[in-house]
Amino acid sequence: MASRETIQEGKRRGKQSVAYENPVYINASASIVGKKEGEGPLGALFDMVGEDDLFGCNTWEEAESSLQKDAVYLAMGKEGLENKEVQYLFAGDLLGQSIATSFGIMTYEIPLFGLYGACSTCGESLSLGSMAVDGGFAQTVICVTSSHFASAEKEFRNPLEYGSQRPLSASWTVTGSAAFVLGKERGAHVRAAITGITTGKIVDYGLKDSMNMGCCMAPAACNVIYQNLIDFGRQPADYDKIITGDLGSIGQRALIDLMAEKGYDISDNHMDCGMQIYDPGSQDTHAGGSGCGCAAVTLSAYILKQLEEKKWKRVLFIPTGALLSKTSFNEGKTVPGIAHGVVIESV
Amino acid sequence: MASRETIQEGKRRGKQSVAYENPVYINASASIVGKKEGEGPLGALFDMVGEDDLFGCNTWEEAESSLQKDAVYLAMGKEGLENKEVQYLFAGDLLGQSIATSFGIMTYEIPLFGLYGACSTCGESLSLGSMAVDGGFAQTVICVTSSHFASAEKEFRNPLEYGSQRPLSASWTVTGSAAFVLGKERGAHVRAAITGITTGKIVDYGLKDSMNMGCCMAPAACNVIYQNLIDFGRQPADYDKIITGDLGSIGQRALIDLMAEKGYDISDNHMDCGMQIYDPGSQDTHAGGSGCGCAAVTLSAYILKQLEEKKWKRVLFIPTGALLSKTSFNEGKTVPGIAHGVVIESV
Repeated sequence: MASRETIQEGKRRGKQSVAYENPVYINASASIVGKKEGEGPLGALFDMVGEDDLFGCNTWEEAESSLQKDAVYLAMGKEGLENKEVQYLFAGDLLGQSIATSFGIMTYEIPLFGLYGACSTCGESLSLGSMAVDGGFAQTVICVTSSHFASAEKEFRNPLEYGSQRPLSASWTVTGSAAFVLGKERGAHVRAAITGITTGKIVDYGLKDSMNMGCCMAPAACNVIYQNLIDFGRQPADYDKIITGDLGSIGQRALIDLMAEKGYDISDNHMDCGMQIYDPGSQDTHAGGSGCGCAAVTLSAYILKQLEEKKWKRVLFIPTGALLSKTSFNEGKTVPGIAHGVVIESV
Repeated sequence: MASRETIQEGKRRGKQSVAYENPVYINASASIVGKKEGEGPLGALFDMVGEDDLFGCNTWEEAESSLQKDAVYLAMGKEGLENKEVQYLFAGDLLGQSIATSFGIMTYEIPLFGLYGACSTCGESLSLGSMAVDGGFAQTVICVTSSHFASAEKEFRNPLEYGSQRPLSASWTVTGSAAFVLGKERGAHVRAAITGITTGKIVDYGLKDSMNMGCCMAPAACNVIYQNLIDFGRQPADYDKIITGDLGSIGQRALIDLMAEKGYDISDNHMDCGMQIYDPGSQDTHAGGSGCGCAAVTLSAYILKQLEEKKWKRVLFIPTGALLSKTSFNEGKTVPGIAHGVVIESV
């Protein structure tokens, strides 16, 4: 059973959460996406849209690396930052040994903490990045994550050339990357601020269907949302939106049901980035978008915009990850989930 | 050019380094290794040695997961900890999508930050773990990493059944895992303390030989050691040992030469975990041991013992990682390196 203790005045920690003493500012961010994402409902909001998904590179992996490189470049440019002014990069992607990150960001020569949280990595990077800033270890850090439809299909399923069919519960990996500049000082063009985090643990309900990752991840999202509400002493209505990363339409149903079992109705204010980024009617993406890039680019392009324009005051942002590899899948293992919650407020 | 500014009194940061205000205590640790490592020069020092490298499991990946599970269990047991007393796990391994970690530590239900820094992950986990403690976000965290010879050969090179030959510059992936309990309060059986960190950036000298990873990683180790000496205003002799993770005998020569070019002679006090763990004369391991587990088990079994017994007062511990995947290798990419430095002192 989860602890019922709320974070007290002057205390920084609840059971799974940290409340920051000072807001950690999201001073700039940038997003870059592929052609299909550019044609979706959020298309006009992204900073850059590729003409094709190779982005001028020779391989899908190089293309994904170039996404991270460009996202960091754009975000630094918006804030007028030079790389020597950035103390740490917190970065990751979905590929084996995180090669999109390694070959994407090495030219910046910024001290790097490489992360792996599957599609939850955007939340993980914002959590560790904001801890580094709030803890006094850095003035400025950048958090960056990416995914690419073609490199992910090759990594987890089959090469595109096989033309494999996908069930309706499957999601479509977003081609995209977003980078976030976090700072101790409020920047001139500040977008929003991180005021707390709720760190997820691995939750495994025993599901083995990698073509239904929404349901594999929903229990982990439920754990983080539930514990966030307990730790901060809040109700769902205290958030304008509770936003998961890439559960998709089927995972969303599972999450709402699981939260109802715990006594919380989040059906009114739940939003899923995977359900925002494509038009299911015309884009044939089935359950929705997924991947590290899905939550990241939606946060940069859409969610932060709502907070900036004060349409929303406070959101709980929870990128969700499915923990599998082709080896674990082929060896018959389950697909456990993890999620990382970040409280983001308008400033 | 690197900054020449030393960390000043009352300041926490140098260019790439953090000096902690209070020591972060390594209150307990545990190591578990395979048969070959048990037969090596450090064999008697490990907490557990497996009878065979499957450790009672059905696959190499499951075996590696069981190593992480057991290392955490042993470390918590030494400190009398229950899992609910541990605020965070910082964990990673070498396998695609870090499945050794996911399936190894999920039963503990501890909030998890998954990391990927190739064989530098032990240093990365101790860096982020000690930041979380020093920053006031946690009382107790556990850092755990692992590698397994057979799962790594399958992941990066060829299945063991192929019987591939290995050049003399190749290293032998250590089968092993070690876990470290870091605490804000000094424990009854405290082993040593972390007093600072120097975080590495990716360094790429353009080498492409994945069978000579020592030379691929030496430039990254050189960068971290050099910057650590600058940031802390120290000379090599201020450390009883400067200890890299898994450069092996050929990488060691490269590192000593690179440091000499920067004006530092570390030949007297450099040590490499990969050169300690096997007997090259009788164990046919070529350049030395490697893998996340190599630095981790050597730290737990040997290095912390020397600090505990006050034979050494202060060491700079620098696990080193080669950033490649079978995809990046097959696509002709280079093998860049990264390293993470941790200053550990006797208490």
